[in-house]
Amino acid sequence: MRTSLCDTLGIDVPIVGFTPSEHVAAAISRAGGLGVLGCVRFNEADELDRVLGWMDENTDGRPYGVDVVMPSKIPTEGSSVDLSGMIPDEHRAFVERTLAQLGVPELPDDTDERAGVLGWLHSVARAHVEVALKHPIKLIANALGSPPTDVIGQAHERGVPVAALAGKAEHARRHVDNGVDIVVAQGYEAGGHTGEIASMVLLPEVVDAVGDRVPVLAAGGIGSGRQAAAALALGAAGVWTGSVWLTTEEYLQTMPESAAMHRALLDATSADTVRTRIYTGKPARLLKTRWTEAWAAPDAPEPLPMPLQNLLVSHAHHRIHAAGDPSVVSMPVGQIVGRLNAVRPVAEVVDEMVRDVAATVERLRGVVS
Amino acid sequence: MRTSLCDTLGIDVPIVGFTPSEHVAAAISRAGGLGVLGCVRFNEADELDRVLGWMDENTDGRPYGVDVVMPSKIPTEGSSVDLSGMIPDEHRAFVERTLAQLGVPELPDDTDERAGVLGWLHSVARAHVEVALKHPIKLIANALGSPPTDVIGQAHERGVPVAALAGKAEHARRHVDNGVDIVVAQGYEAGGHTGEIASMVLLPEVVDAVGDRVPVLAAGGIGSGRQAAAALALGAAGVWTGSVWLTTEEYLQTMPESAAMHRALLDATSADTVRTRIYTGKPARLLKTRWTEAWAAPDAPEPLPMPLQNLLVSHAHHRIHAAGDPSVVSMPVGQIVGRLNAVRPVAEVVDEMVRDVAATVERLRGVVS
Repeated sequence: MRTSLCDTLGIDVPIVGFTPSEHVAAAISRAGGLGVLGCVRFNEADELDRVLGWMDENTDGRPYGVDVVMPSKIPTEGSSVDLSGMIPDEHRAFVERTLAQLGVPELPDDTDERAGVLGWLHSVARAHVEVALKHPIKLIANALGSPPTDVIGQAHERGVPVAALAGKAEHARRHVDNGVDIVVAQGYEAGGHTGEIASMVLLPEVVDAVGDRVPVLAAGGIGSGRQAAAALALGAAGVWTGSVWLTTEEYLQTMPESAAMHRALLDATSADTVRTRIYTGKPARLLKTRWTEAWAAPDAPEPLPMPLQNLLVSHAHHRIHAAGDPSVVSMPVGQIVGRLNAVRPVAEVVDEMVRDVAATVERLRGVVS
Repeated sequence: MRTSLCDTLGIDVPIVGFTPSEHVAAAISRAGGLGVLGCVRFNEADELDRVLGWMDENTDGRPYGVDVVMPSKIPTEGSSVDLSGMIPDEHRAFVERTLAQLGVPELPDDTDERAGVLGWLHSVARAHVEVALKHPIKLIANALGSPPTDVIGQAHERGVPVAALAGKAEHARRHVDNGVDIVVAQGYEAGGHTGEIASMVLLPEVVDAVGDRVPVLAAGGIGSGRQAAAALALGAAGVWTGSVWLTTEEYLQTMPESAAMHRALLDATSADTVRTRIYTGKPARLLKTRWTEAWAAPDAPEPLPMPLQNLLVSHAHHRIHAAGDPSVVSMPVGQIVGRLNAVRPVAEVVDEMVRDVAATVERLRGVVS
């Protein structure tokens, strides 16, 4: 399984794996793909620097990348303290009431609680880029479209290609016009921030729009070799995967306390996700749980815009996480969660995908011969 | 391009084409696929009988099928007159107000107006089956899941296989347990009645659930050879297509007055559809127009259940159709509408799809060799 992307990125197989876990990212790179570490969880640039240092020591010299979250429109800036003042009381009351109804206890008084996710503030995402460029990264991806052109320039000066996610062909065209080197066509079925056009339709449209200028990666619904082969049939130069790594052994190393989340993911079917604005303020696909259902009820308020919504629910996420109830998890994941039924090592997932792509192509030869 | 489905149905290429037009259905069959005539528009069984007679004379002895719409739960029965009494005044007032706001004129007084679509009443759909089984049909498909077991038995007595659409793997399992011979896995991106799971995820799930017992067809997002090849990669034994035939030359022969609808389809992008209950009462994907937007506004009432909603909007559909304004069309279509940019003969669409599947598989061989 080899495409031009392998030469572009210096990898063995055109499988790019996005993950918030450095253990998973390093394992993907070691297995011959490109591990891409999600930076949004790092409020402090120093913490990211430390983790990337660990990556440098644990990737056997194989390439890896990072993913930042820069909205194309610059949202409200500020520290978590002054942004908090912009959250309506009605929303706070709804969150408190809902947590009580769902049986999620308060945190102990001595809990050392981090601020909400600030990684989608431009200031914080820019700090991520600065830090990442001090490490031997091979890709900077932006989850929300083109980064500002000066950020693209900064990456290019260091010889680092820039990837951007696109949910429409017109966005892909704009990204490439802005200097983006790789487009990730992210279909409706994907986890996290996602649009409304499904991969089967979106991918060939994006390939036809920009495929002669840059490689296009398929994101959304890719968790097996058959799906990767389908993506290649649709014109992708490789696959961008995310959800499939959430149930790997290595993920548990980063998030050992996530037993409830794992249980919920392993038990879910492909019908158990929902696309909602409650996680960040922009539409994102989450596991459907009693928490997302509460926000879908008639008495629920409209979610706030980014970055306020995540600040609103950040404390709730801590309480939910500590409570450990699989029915009240708050977790971005794609529709392929229905296929995640066992905890496996990263290398096994990669190897199986590569083998199944080969088997699928062999099967297709029989159809046309 | 040949799979086991070709032997099962006696066709040259595993392309099944659903269409309300007998001209399109016959042309698909003549081109080597299986044309499937949608019966829901025939309120009178005699009219269907006449049209199937035309099919018999225009398919050169090639196989064809029919599609009926039988909800798995038997809905409210009755003539259009007594069902009309169940429609709330608020809904009627909203429709009238909206048509006026959209500039859709009244029909002339002497218009000979048909009743709304009654084809999804069990009584009418059963009459369709009775009539169809008098013709040499090779398939009965049900758009809303398993037909009742006695209807399946009736078809099997005549040696006619039964297909059923499924939007979830568990539905597919139930269909096959009920005696269904072919499952159509219909993804979120499809036009008309559709579920929430995208083809990339749904199709391999359905194949894994029932693919060892029956052939599985891929529906939703299939309008090109690359998409058909992707469907085969995902495990489909063939493709079920619909939207792609709406902009064929032959379709214009059945619906010569549909110029506005054609203009709207040719101009639309893949982002210009919406999944809504306003057409039939069940979620169906339609072209996004000023009509669907009006129903999405905060002042719009909730759509009524099937079959009341279509009776409610039936008169509006007549007025909209007569008005001929492309911005106020009411038309089921899938997300591949973005790829429908020219009027072409059916045979050309089939030939190109077959050629592109072969070219795609050849390209994939390069990836794995």
